[in-house]
Amino acid sequence: MQYPREIERLIAELCKLPGIGRKSAQQLAFHILELDEKEADDFADAIRDARHSVRYCPVCGNLTDKDKCAICSDPSRRKDVICVVETPQDVMAMEALKEYHGQYHVLNGVISAMEGIGPEDINLKSLIERLRDSEVQEVILATNPNIEGEATAMYIARLLKPAGIKVTRIAHGLPVGGDIEYADKVTLLKSLEGRTEI
Amino acid sequence: MQYPREIERLIAELCKLPGIGRKSAQQLAFHILELDEKEADDFADAIRDARHSVRYCPVCGNLTDKDKCAICSDPSRRKDVICVVETPQDVMAMEALKEYHGQYHVLNGVISAMEGIGPEDINLKSLIERLRDSEVQEVILATNPNIEGEATAMYIARLLKPAGIKVTRIAHGLPVGGDIEYADKVTLLKSLEGRTEI
Repeated sequence: MQYPREIERLIAELCKLPGIGRKSAQQLAFHILELDEKEADDFADAIRDARHSVRYCPVCGNLTDKDKCAICSDPSRRKDVICVVETPQDVMAMEALKEYHGQYHVLNGVISAMEGIGPEDINLKSLIERLRDSEVQEVILATNPNIEGEATAMYIARLLKPAGIKVTRIAHGLPVGGDIEYADKVTLLKSLEGRTEI
Repeated sequence: MQYPREIERLIAELCKLPGIGRKSAQQLAFHILELDEKEADDFADAIRDARHSVRYCPVCGNLTDKDKCAICSDPSRRKDVICVVETPQDVMAMEALKEYHGQYHVLNGVISAMEGIGPEDINLKSLIERLRDSEVQEVILATNPNIEGEATAMYIARLLKPAGIKVTRIAHGLPVGGDIEYADKVTLLKSLEGRTEI
């Protein structure tokens, strides 16, 4: 016994979403069936329009629905520093600080030997091209502080060294509000190594 | 700082789904942006098509994409018994047993004083009409074993009594594999009251 064909099709599509199993998909499907037709159409249009109109910024790799992303086309931002991040979500996290006013470069991935993702599979080549004949003084590597993120940062640092550009890595250490007693050893060691004079 | 407009629109639509907060919606949105255009279109079409093609069966209130639902149009099913349930999902749960071969009546709701849902707000009137001049011998009330489900069952039982149709209620008791020690008092009492001779 199955639900009518169109319901099963909707459930199957919802099941493909990350973290959504059959039971959750059914619940979502029945929610959608209870929407007004207008609401359901708006939802469907939002999916289609987002997918069709959103593309990668050709300069930095961030997501945009224009020719260039909002940050690359903002003339008021500093041009002498590029912050390299893994995802557009990381750009949002950095922007939420309201402390960084330079450019970004979004790798849209991370080098991972485990998953067979090499330097040529991420948005890295365009970073090298971007740095050629540019006014960039510093590249900040803000990839995640995990194995893949570190490996990617190391790779990029080595790649950029011959060009004589200053390459920095965001600091490791204890999270603010954290507890030394419960910190993992690696983090504690990093926070000791990275100590600064006060 | 916000994501490009079309991404924010998609996130907003996903946020409307039950159990999906802003963070999950973002995650789902970025998953959708990474789909092939064809896959995203299929997903959008599934939502639209399901909502447009699925309707309530005019006989029993179950969901269908035909004129009548699969169960109502199955000539091999018994016509002398109707099982009253709250939702189409409950029909699926009953059908999964492969033990019940009669008709269904889906209320698509439940009487709830708390939420101001009265008998006229659920698919009940059509049950009365269905029973008039019919060959139905028994109505099984399979609403949920909670306050609203019980109240609804009681209401329907009282409504059908004058018509002289046998009205039954599914049994309460301990779930199979359950533990008397940890059973709640009401369930244990019900299981005692409903004891059968072996």
